[in-house]
Amino acid sequence: MVQLGANRYGKAEVRVVHIGRAAGPGGADLVRDWNVSTALSGDLAGTHLTGDNAHVLPTDTQKNTVYALAKKLGGIEPEAFGLELAAHYTGGQEAISRARIAIEEYPWAPLGAGGHSFARSGEYIRTVTVIDDQDHGRSVVGGLRDLLVLNTTGSQFRGFPHDEYTTLEDAYDRMLATTVSASWRFREADSDWTAAFTAARSALIDAFTQTPSYSLQQTLYGMGSAVLAAVPEICEVRLALPNKHHFAVDLAPFGLANDNEVYYAADRPYGLIEGTVLADDAPDAGIAWS
Amino acid sequence: MVQLGANRYGKAEVRVVHIGRAAGPGGADLVRDWNVSTALSGDLAGTHLTGDNAHVLPTDTQKNTVYALAKKLGGIEPEAFGLELAAHYTGGQEAISRARIAIEEYPWAPLGAGGHSFARSGEYIRTVTVIDDQDHGRSVVGGLRDLLVLNTTGSQFRGFPHDEYTTLEDAYDRMLATTVSASWRFREADSDWTAAFTAARSALIDAFTQTPSYSLQQTLYGMGSAVLAAVPEICEVRLALPNKHHFAVDLAPFGLANDNEVYYAADRPYGLIEGTVLADDAPDAGIAWS
Amino acid sequence: MVQLGANRYGKAEVRVVHIGRAAGPGGADLVRDWNVSTALSGDLAGTHLTGDNAHVLPTDTQKNTVYALAKKLGGIEPEAFGLELAAHYTGGQEAISRARIAIEEYPWAPLGAGGHSFARSGEYIRTVTVIDDQDHGRSVVGGLRDLLVLNTTGSQFRGFPHDEYTTLEDAYDRMLATTVSASWRFREADSDWTAAFTAARSALIDAFTQTPSYSLQQTLYGMGSAVLAAVPEICEVRLALPNKHHFAVDLAPFGLANDNEVYYAADRPYGLIEGTVLADDAPDAGIAWS
Amino acid sequence: MVQLGANRYGKAEVRVVHIGRAAGPGGADLVRDWNVSTALSGDLAGTHLTGDNAHVLPTDTQKNTVYALAKKLGGIEPEAFGLELAAHYTGGQEAISRARIAIEEYPWAPLGAGGHSFARSGEYIRTVTVIDDQDHGRSVVGGLRDLLVLNTTGSQFRGFPHDEYTTLEDAYDRMLATTVSASWRFREADSDWTAAFTAARSALIDAFTQTPSYSLQQTLYGMGSAVLAAVPEICEVRLALPNKHHFAVDLAPFGLANDNEVYYAADRPYGLIEGTVLADDAPDAGIAWS
Repeated sequence: MVQLGANRYGKAEVRVVHIGRAAGPGGADLVRDWNVSTALSGDLAGTHLTGDNAHVLPTDTQKNTVYALAKKLGGIEPEAFGLELAAHYTGGQEAISRARIAIEEYPWAPLGAGGHSFARSGEYIRTVTVIDDQDHGRSVVGGLRDLLVLNTTGSQFRGFPHDEYTTLEDAYDRMLATTVSASWRFREADSDWTAAFTAARSALIDAFTQTPSYSLQQTLYGMGSAVLAAVPEICEVRLALPNKHHFAVDLAPFGLANDNEVYYAADRPYGLIEGTVLADDAPDAGIAWS
Repeated sequence: MVQLGANRYGKAEVRVVHIGRAAGPGGADLVRDWNVSTALSGDLAGTHLTGDNAHVLPTDTQKNTVYALAKKLGGIEPEAFGLELAAHYTGGQEAISRARIAIEEYPWAPLGAGGHSFARSGEYIRTVTVIDDQDHGRSVVGGLRDLLVLNTTGSQFRGFPHDEYTTLEDAYDRMLATTVSASWRFREADSDWTAAFTAARSALIDAFTQTPSYSLQQTLYGMGSAVLAAVPEICEVRLALPNKHHFAVDLAPFGLANDNEVYYAADRPYGLIEGTVLADDAPDAGIAWS
Repeated sequence: MVQLGANRYGKAEVRVVHIGRAAGPGGADLVRDWNVSTALSGDLAGTHLTGDNAHVLPTDTQKNTVYALAKKLGGIEPEAFGLELAAHYTGGQEAISRARIAIEEYPWAPLGAGGHSFARSGEYIRTVTVIDDQDHGRSVVGGLRDLLVLNTTGSQFRGFPHDEYTTLEDAYDRMLATTVSASWRFREADSDWTAAFTAARSALIDAFTQTPSYSLQQTLYGMGSAVLAAVPEICEVRLALPNKHHFAVDLAPFGLANDNEVYYAADRPYGLIEGTVLADDAPDAGIAWS
Repeated sequence: MVQLGANRYGKAEVRVVHIGRAAGPGGADLVRDWNVSTALSGDLAGTHLTGDNAHVLPTDTQKNTVYALAKKLGGIEPEAFGLELAAHYTGGQEAISRARIAIEEYPWAPLGAGGHSFARSGEYIRTVTVIDDQDHGRSVVGGLRDLLVLNTTGSQFRGFPHDEYTTLEDAYDRMLATTVSASWRFREADSDWTAAFTAARSALIDAFTQTPSYSLQQTLYGMGSAVLAAVPEICEVRLALPNKHHFAVDLAPFGLANDNEVYYAADRPYGLIEGTVLADDAPDAGIAWS
């Protein structure tokens, strides 16, 4: 005999753009460019077991809801939008006990002085995950991804163990590059979201830039600690840092020295360092990361 | 004050191809084309806190290990390879208490009768995740992804609730297409892996094909149940089924009827149905899904 | 002073799926899954110079036209569809003197015996480019891409020149893998399109499989020649063959031999071999490849 | 009987990064992050017809050459590097009569004041194509791609013809977004490359931003003209501008107005506008675009 386990459903990747006319700095337009995904859980056994859809608010409706709330709420911060959207479901659909909202925000930078032109900044994507659960309460996880950073010096890797398959030599001065994916959990579902985002992003970059690195793990821990120090509303930071290897090319066969000038940027495989830094007094995460 | 939380590190996406000369059916070569990712956990505070790498077996070594074991073990099944590779770390590195091995296998189909030529079958990718933990024991999760299937009829979606944002109309005969991602947990770290894979894959396809569908959730539950029925060694199935919407195009403005002939295949947004089907006597999952 | 040069405009990537009910082999449904792009040229100076759109049939209309003709023409072959669609523009819009239609067809394989279920075959994508020009006439180029093939033996590469940067050693038995992109020009805008496609595809595969290879260029020439021999209606074949390098891993540091068993499948860089094979009596290509 | 037609071969996507220590503005490091592809043509019938590789300088050697020249030439501009690399082949290999070098440069922006840290700017990619041919001489085409820009107002599209499939309504105030791909041909193989690039990029952006647009074609023509006006060394500009449609969402079913606030950002299909703007005295392009 079998049973239904954990499940959820929703509309993924609703691409909504909100233009706040003259709502931005200096009277420019304010662009909110989002990719919104909603997932609902609750009393959904019927549709799985018999195809009874009485509790299944259509994913098409969920798409419509994103657009309607974008109008009603205006160009608010994505964390705030996620909370409102989640509450709409847990408060409005009896069968739904949990809503999970994930938002990616694509930043745009102003072009010229007219206030109406923008270029997509490809430097990073801002991320938000909100969960609103009737039993577990609300949680907000902010973050960013696709932030590609590089130190041309100041990174070592040595003192590691050797086994029968180890051929790597000690590195006293290597390139260190990574694509930062960071997520930070807020203590409460209320904050100055954009100020927190900006401070967290700066802390990540400063720590990456200023930490003399003996390992990417050490850099990771420094980056997570810096976010916690910079933003007291944040109690936990999770980081995934692929080591974007830049190998110094051996030019000796061509009679050339390579004094850390010419590198091969490898695609695969890559080191992948994942870790968590927590405040000592961080409240229990509950379902925030689910 | 801050502390280090959960962490792991390893080499991701090691692309190894093993050719078993004359080791395949009918004396043909046997191609094992894998993307292997390893992640190790354990006593790794030192490298995070002070950059002391005494416990950090290099990710470069992990890459080498994949290649060396591919030679030593030959073209064995990916689940078996994952178990051996994981045990190599938990048994050989005192500081390492857990190893997680993820493998993607890309299938190749023979070309001609020579036994040496193959075409990459793009129909699906076989997936494996093995965890070997000194406290929690071993787990094996098999699966597949990127299997894109389509029913041209036999799918409905109606009887759903309506709220203020609902505009969807009842569907009595819709196209149903999805890209199957399925993962199945084995009861024990020992099985006839390929037979199980083949039976699970067939069960997924048969259930998708033969289930009259009132919702994609119902199809999901049918697919998961079918795997459990077909392969007793499997105790849990997790499925993620994006609804690859095919909308019938409104041709009325052009004076044309569209009797379910012409569809627009949409990219985004898409419905996303995720669910789990468990055997009633499934043992606790422990860390199998971490 | 500046002037307007060559230009064209249209709708790209119209994703249309046509289901021919019971129109396939054995009474199964026939799935035509296409990505259609149209590009129109002609008397378009006005819109460029002054924004006068009197000659600019909207790209939105072009999208609608794809759907309407999919209905009117039914599930015909993509080459035939491209010809009809192109003629619709050159015959119907006075300002338009040339239409270029590009179609990708994604193949689906039947699942089960019901006639209504299919799995997307990822083995290759069929391609078509049709040009209909009031001065230059009509041309049809068929083809395929994303066909990934592999020979585990029977390939060499030696006897090459050495310069100051050459470190490669002779290869007497290497893996040879490539992702085939092939385009073939028809002598006339009339053929048994699917028979030609099937024969051309088989010829490519057979030549790849059966040619003892001293270079990928030699294989390319063999593949192109085989298509010309197999399909007399085709007068020219263009091939782009990336050399998907599989490097034998050096296991000597680990005390292991590697007798062509374990390979590293590299991503980048890759060799790229591009070439054309023509029938001696091939008519002039005109604008077929533009 | 068949014959060999146009052909070329080389190494594609050599990922080389050159660090000019303290060579950048303000004494910071200078990062050159490139993806280099080389393609050689000439007397290559032998390898195609018989597998005689006496004229086939290995693509592996071409990879090595990129690295060696990166060392020898230092962090020079990509256009200059392409010219040197091309000349290396046409001047050094008797059988090679033409070399085509394509380079993508990924820009990095400094982080902090240390001079050693950088973030990858994702705003655009700089492109270069150099051809050096013994008969046709040398050509340089610069450009950029992946520059995504948006005007929130100031764009119309109306006055277009209507046929039986036209349903689009006049737009008096639409969003206009596009991902700019631009290539510009230099009159001579000698210029102040970076100054030209910077001026061309600014001209593109200013024209996009400041042109009241009645069609994307008009914007394209304005952008191309602006580049020609800003950089006299450039004689021809080719642009490909996908219309990244942003459709105002119909919120009327929910009792809401949408006064150009909420948009759906569509993926496919998309309008694609391609065009060329030439100086009246542009020299013949020869093989520059091949």
